[in-house]
Parts: sequence; C-alpha cells; structure tokens
Amino acid sequence: MAFQHSFTVRFGEVDAAGVVYFARIFDYAHRAYEDVLTHLGFPLDRILQEDGWGMPLVHAEADFVRPMRLGESLTVDVDITALSERRVSFGFSIRDDRDTVRAVVRCDHAFVDIASFRGRQAPSDFVEAAQRLGLIREA
Amino acid sequence: MAFQHSFTVRFGEVDAAGVVYFARIFDYAHRAYEDVLTHLGFPLDRILQEDGWGMPLVHAEADFVRPMRLGESLTVDVDITALSERRVSFGFSIRDDRDTVRAVVRCDHAFVDIASFRGRQAPSDFVEAAQRLGLIREA
Amino acid sequence: MAFQHSFTVRFGEVDAAGVVYFARIFDYAHRAYEDVLTHLGFPLDRILQEDGWGMPLVHAEADFVRPMRLGESLTVDVDITALSERRVSFGFSIRDDRDTVRAVVRCDHAFVDIASFRGRQAPSDFVEAAQRLGLIREA
Amino acid sequence: MAFQHSFTVRFGEVDAAGVVYFARIFDYAHRAYEDVLTHLGFPLDRILQEDGWGMPLVHAEADFVRPMRLGESLTVDVDITALSERRVSFGFSIRDDRDTVRAVVRCDHAFVDIASFRGRQAPSDFVEAAQRLGLIREA
Repeated sequence: MAFQHSFTVRFGEVDAAGVVYFARIFDYAHRAYEDVLTHLGFPLDRILQEDGWGMPLVHAEADFVRPMRLGESLTVDVDITALSERRVSFGFSIRDDRDTVRAVVRCDHAFVDIASFRGRQAPSDFVEAAQRLGLIREA
Repeated sequence: MAFQHSFTVRFGEVDAAGVVYFARIFDYAHRAYEDVLTHLGFPLDRILQEDGWGMPLVHAEADFVRPMRLGESLTVDVDITALSERRVSFGFSIRDDRDTVRAVVRCDHAFVDIASFRGRQAPSDFVEAAQRLGLIREA
Repeated sequence: MAFQHSFTVRFGEVDAAGVVYFARIFDYAHRAYEDVLTHLGFPLDRILQEDGWGMPLVHAEADFVRPMRLGESLTVDVDITALSERRVSFGFSIRDDRDTVRAVVRCDHAFVDIASFRGRQAPSDFVEAAQRLGLIREA
Repeated sequence: MAFQHSFTVRFGEVDAAGVVYFARIFDYAHRAYEDVLTHLGFPLDRILQEDGWGMPLVHAEADFVRPMRLGESLTVDVDITALSERRVSFGFSIRDDRDTVRAVVRCDHAFVDIASFRGRQAPSDFVEAAQRLGLIREA
C-alpha cells in the first residue's frame, strides 16, 4: 500500500507550451519523497542536521505519459521499489482523479555521511521503519 | 563535435544539503537544448508560434556523478544520440574545467503538432540542419 | 476575514544559506493568490482560456521578517488591500504556528485583455464575488 | 557606471500566460547581484563559507513595466543605490536591446553574521571595493 501526496498544478509550473515544464515533475516527486520520509519518522531537515546522514540522488528518470495542465488536481503514489545496503530506489506514479497515469518517476538515492559525502550503509532504523509501514514494493 | 553551453551555479539552485538541487540539473540540460535549437536555426519560441510543431519530452533521465556547488563554472556538451521518424534523443554531459564529469543527462522528445499535441514525423528541415551541423552522434 | 493557504517548506526551496530563497516566497504568495481566485469562482486556468482577461503583475514587494527553514509548516493569509477600476492589490502575510510573521508580501495587478495585453476595467462579476466573500480589507 | 549581466529568457521561465513568471524576474536580479559580488571580489560562496558574514534580503520589490518573452536577450544593469552601516540596497534595471525598460528591481540586504543571523556592520573591505569600482550611485 503506497503513500500518497496530492497537489494542484500551479501557474508558475506551466511552461511556454502550456503544459507543466518537465523539471517541475521531478519536483512533484521530490515533494512526495519528503512527505514519505516525514511519514517514516525521518524528516529531511532532521536527518541532515541531527542524524548526520543523507540520501543524495545518484539517478533520476521519468516517463512523461500525458501532459499536465494548470489547475489540475493530481496525486503521487510513492513506494520503495528497491532497497540494498548502499542504495534505495523510490518509485512515483502521478495520476489524475480518473486514475489516468500522467507520469512515472524513479529516483535512486545513495546513503552517505553528510559531512564527507562518502557512501555508508543504509541506517537500520530507516530500513525497519520502511518495512514496518509497508512501503517496500513486493517483488 | 558537440555543441557547448557554459554556465555558473547560482545561489538559488543549491539546496538545503549545500549542493545543486537535482531538478535544476535538468534545467541546465534544457538550457543547452534551447541553445542548440537556436544554433540549428530552430529557436523554440519560433517553432512553437510559427512552425506549429513542438518536441515535448517523453522521457528524461540523469546520472548525478559528482555534486555541483555554488559558484562553479561548468560546461554542458550536447549532441543528438538518436534520431528516428518520430523521436529525437539529446545527450548532455556536464563537466567542470578539469574535464571531470558531474552529471550525464538524456532527454527523449517526440515530434508533435503543437495544436493537437498528436505525434507527427520529424520535420525534414530540422533533420537536415542537425546532419549539416554534425550534431548527430556517430554510432 | 482573510483566506488562508497552508504549506510546508520544501527541500528545493532552501538556498545555499540554509533558509528559503527569497524568490520562492513570492511563489508562496502566488499560490495563495491562485487558491483565492479559485475560491472566488475565477480559477486562473479558466479566466485565461475562457473569459479572455488576465491580471498580470505590475508591482510586487516583500518584507522578509524572519527566515523560513526546511520542513516548517506555514500559513499565508490573503486579502484584497485595494481595488480600483483598473487595478487590484493583494496582501499576503506568512505566519508560523505561533502566529509569528515571517514575511509580508504585496502584489499589484492590472486588469488586461489577455489577447492584446491592454488594460481594461475590473470585471464586475469579479468585483462582486470579492465583495460577497468579504475579501476586501476595510479601510 | 553600472555593472551589467546579460541573459536569455528560458523556456521554463515563461508561465501559463506566455510571459516570464514574475518570481523569475527576481531570479534575474539575483544572478546579476551574484555576478557583481564576484566582480567586487566577494563571491557569495566564499563569503558564506570563509568570511562568516552574509547579506540576507530584508526587502525586495519590482515594477514590471513590459512583459518579457521566450528567447529574448536582455541585460540587467546593477548598482548600489544606498549603503549604510547596517544595510545595502541594490538597484536593477532590466532592458532589451532597444534600451526599453522591462522591469526595475530593488533589493535591500542587511549585513549579518552568518552563524547567528544577527545584524553586524558592513565589512569595511566590502564598502571600499564598492567605492573603488564605482558601484555606488551618486545621490
């Protein structure tokens, strides 16, 4: 059962062709990611400042299925599609209220020590929270 | 021989972790894309308004190799990595002044009629300009 | 009685100094403006496309009272501070959950015909809706 | 004699009404500000990290004189319009190649200690550099 983030397409997010500018769609996914981290008990502001680790993106990709337009109400479903010792992949599906997919986004993050920006193992309490809340997609 | 676009990392592009926010990196690629279109004789503002066709993104992806920081001077190399009747893929490599790769971006566009947003064939004059200026990567 | 829009400070909105980048604060105000227009029965997407008029900004200003940080939950109160035949001014106050003011924004818009971008009179149904919903600040 | 920053209006900066989104105009001014700081010998990345002081915005305002459109080449002239012990105001004028003013922006900054975010006096070497390079507007 995925986590959901809902949003409205904003005026400043639409480009000169009248549809959402593609880079904003990555913003939509990242906002859902921020919300799911908070839901897991690991809000980004706290892990950066107190816990000393981070999850910088190492890869991101998106398929833009149908254009999104000003004023539309859309929903992002997010789950964890892969989790290893060093990396975690989040999957995002952006749908409208008729359940039509507009875009699919994938973001791969590496676990790092925030001071050195060097790789580190996935924090065990983070992995446990993701498992407990059922965020990890079944194979 | 690729086309180049140079830029400086700006204050508002850096995120709460002190490095360029990932979605901005897609902006860097898109700015290089806009410049290469102008170089080809097909500036985006004109093709949208006069020529009546467009190239919306259908897929975008990036590998974030090394973080980029405020004030850095970087260069984007851009070429066309694939060109078919219906689609064109642009490849972008973002490097620093020591030639170290910071990110690699790929953007796949579909040719559409701008009014209907329906697919159409690649405009022949666009294909010819890309060939003439040597922008299409050798296999 | 003002209209309210609530939001969370996002990762990509914080700059290299660790606080919200100033131009994003104008985004917060504009999102509240979009919501209040929808509340009034004049969603921006519809007035641009169907009604044929618009309200481009002619002036904007902000006082940045206290920095905003990643993850904070904030609220924008918005009302109309001035309304004449040709112009409308919206006032925005951004506060935290202790009612401390973080920023105050003012946006002055001119009524225009969207096709010609020429000035026009305030649409009477817009003025009536603003009065009916009590959005116009008492002198 | 003001400092100049030139730029091209980008695809992602234009909004649903076909002109530059107002908050992006503050970005244009801030990029000119970053360049003028570098020109003065005080690049933002260095002063934040090494010098330990900063200049957060306390007020910003803009008059939007004429809309800006995709692909236009524009120039920002920037100078210091006021400088006191605690504050500095930068003035920006955005013009096209016919010298027509498109927008005028003003940004007021307070000098702060970056660690405490408390006010401090204008660093004397910064003031001297601004005077030496003739950036302070004559009364």
